[in-house]
Amino acid sequence: MMGAVNKPVVGIIGTGAIGGFYGLMLARAGFDVHFLLRSEFSAVAEHGLRVDSAVHGALTLSPVQAYSSAEDMPPCDWLLVGAKTTSNAGLAPSIIQAAKPGARVLVLQNGLDVEDSLRELLPDSLHLLGGLCLICVHRDAPGQITHQALGAVNIGYHSGPATDDAARMAIVEEGAGLFRAAGIDSQAMPNLHQARWQKLVWNIPYNGLSVLLGASTTPLMADVDSRASIQALMAEVVQGAKACGHDMPPGYAEYLFLMTEKMPDYWPSMYHDFLHKRPLELEAIYARPLAAAKAAGCELPRIEALYRNLGFIDRRNA
Amino acid sequence: MMGAVNKPVVGIIGTGAIGGFYGLMLARAGFDVHFLLRSEFSAVAEHGLRVDSAVHGALTLSPVQAYSSAEDMPPCDWLLVGAKTTSNAGLAPSIIQAAKPGARVLVLQNGLDVEDSLRELLPDSLHLLGGLCLICVHRDAPGQITHQALGAVNIGYHSGPATDDAARMAIVEEGAGLFRAAGIDSQAMPNLHQARWQKLVWNIPYNGLSVLLGASTTPLMADVDSRASIQALMAEVVQGAKACGHDMPPGYAEYLFLMTEKMPDYWPSMYHDFLHKRPLELEAIYARPLAAAKAAGCELPRIEALYRNLGFIDRRNA
Repeated sequence: MMGAVNKPVVGIIGTGAIGGFYGLMLARAGFDVHFLLRSEFSAVAEHGLRVDSAVHGALTLSPVQAYSSAEDMPPCDWLLVGAKTTSNAGLAPSIIQAAKPGARVLVLQNGLDVEDSLRELLPDSLHLLGGLCLICVHRDAPGQITHQALGAVNIGYHSGPATDDAARMAIVEEGAGLFRAAGIDSQAMPNLHQARWQKLVWNIPYNGLSVLLGASTTPLMADVDSRASIQALMAEVVQGAKACGHDMPPGYAEYLFLMTEKMPDYWPSMYHDFLHKRPLELEAIYARPLAAAKAAGCELPRIEALYRNLGFIDRRNA
Repeated sequence: MMGAVNKPVVGIIGTGAIGGFYGLMLARAGFDVHFLLRSEFSAVAEHGLRVDSAVHGALTLSPVQAYSSAEDMPPCDWLLVGAKTTSNAGLAPSIIQAAKPGARVLVLQNGLDVEDSLRELLPDSLHLLGGLCLICVHRDAPGQITHQALGAVNIGYHSGPATDDAARMAIVEEGAGLFRAAGIDSQAMPNLHQARWQKLVWNIPYNGLSVLLGASTTPLMADVDSRASIQALMAEVVQGAKACGHDMPPGYAEYLFLMTEKMPDYWPSMYHDFLHKRPLELEAIYARPLAAAKAAGCELPRIEALYRNLGFIDRRNA
């Protein structure tokens, strides 16, 4: 299970559903993968990782190269950040500790500008990239993950020492190659910021309504009023993106709506955060897009109403 | 406890919190009051009515002139309709049965145009009036009512045989006098439709948010996000009213907001309906104002989003 010669060393910062799933897939493909864990360290070090996947079957990784401190990790070529956006700033010291010079840091999170706060805390020599995961996955218990559907990771360059488009795309392609070697679909994205807006077309309605209405995708897609809410919220995201200079591909919202109808029943990650009394990712998924649109002169009243309702719920849930 | 000579005979159609409270107050003031009940008939006939009032103390009425069928009621001069708007059409036969020729039918309900569907079912000879209750009251059990605060009833003429303003105002003043004789503040309203819009400035935010967020007025007024939601919803009601030709008095929304801060903690009636799995009054309080504003070219996106969320919840709760 140790990496072959020339294969990059991969560090996973935050081994929840996302970090655990992709880390396990890369390790099974022969990469040398090291997992940084906090509260789940003992469980994973003792029992390993398990992914029950509707796509790939039951997968296990044991033993796991698990660490409770970044100081014990070997220097990594790639660092995959799968933690919640709410903890990004706190992760910077661990990332710096585990990074080889010139390492690539890939933030696998939803929301707008989630790399910005991290960028300020990282040395200029590190490449920072963003990855958008199109996947239905959740953590059932420490080290135990259920993968329901999909899995692609699309990657874009955020900032760092690569100064021209060709150098940036080379690094992005290198990252995409890593995932493809593990059997995971991965595309390079020329414009990370635009891609993050596109991902919000799904995240803004489904994450928020799952918490507000206590409902997973199947009942949300079965009711005339929640369907209308989802469509109206999607239309506002598209409008906000456009105001910020990012036109969506024609029919993109309709495509996501139909895709969700065909998906297995799914509880979005924000609902899991709510259920486990973790802070909701309201800043990344709601506040920043609202602020960006407002700065461009565009009000998004339905998204703002949803954000306010979620703010109340989040504070009550704390 | 029987009515004095020349005092009008009053029938209460729907003896819930509103009908029970005002009926009991009128009966205690010496009016001849007759209560029509459905599911609660036996309990009230046996044990009477009880109002625990923070304003008037503990009040009881026993025995109660209670009826399970309108056919058994004496002909009434005034009929007070305190049932839910969702049952209005079904009440018309009872109202007609219990009404003296030329009787006044006073609908004590929230929402827009709640008299319209009833009007179509009543003979032209009956006067139809609307009453807006500014009161914090709820039913704890059959015949047991808690009155927390306030109490005024403001009355306007909807339709019927009074053909000029003077005749209409005379009948409205007659109704206001009835309540005042029972120690209840009551004002005549020259424009019922406008007054119904004004009442919606309170009902639209607080009724809906109490169900959506599972929160009573005190926590809603204590959180920065729900405060902002309430203010934004109030502003949309004012905007909708204006589009329909009804300017609010300056500062009216701010007045209601501050009044609610000073009120004792209160669960709006829609929350009680939700809790007891009764249908929510979404048509009267949300759908009709939205449709009226839209017909006047005015979109109210936050109210519409709230209405959609409540529609989903109402259907799930059924």
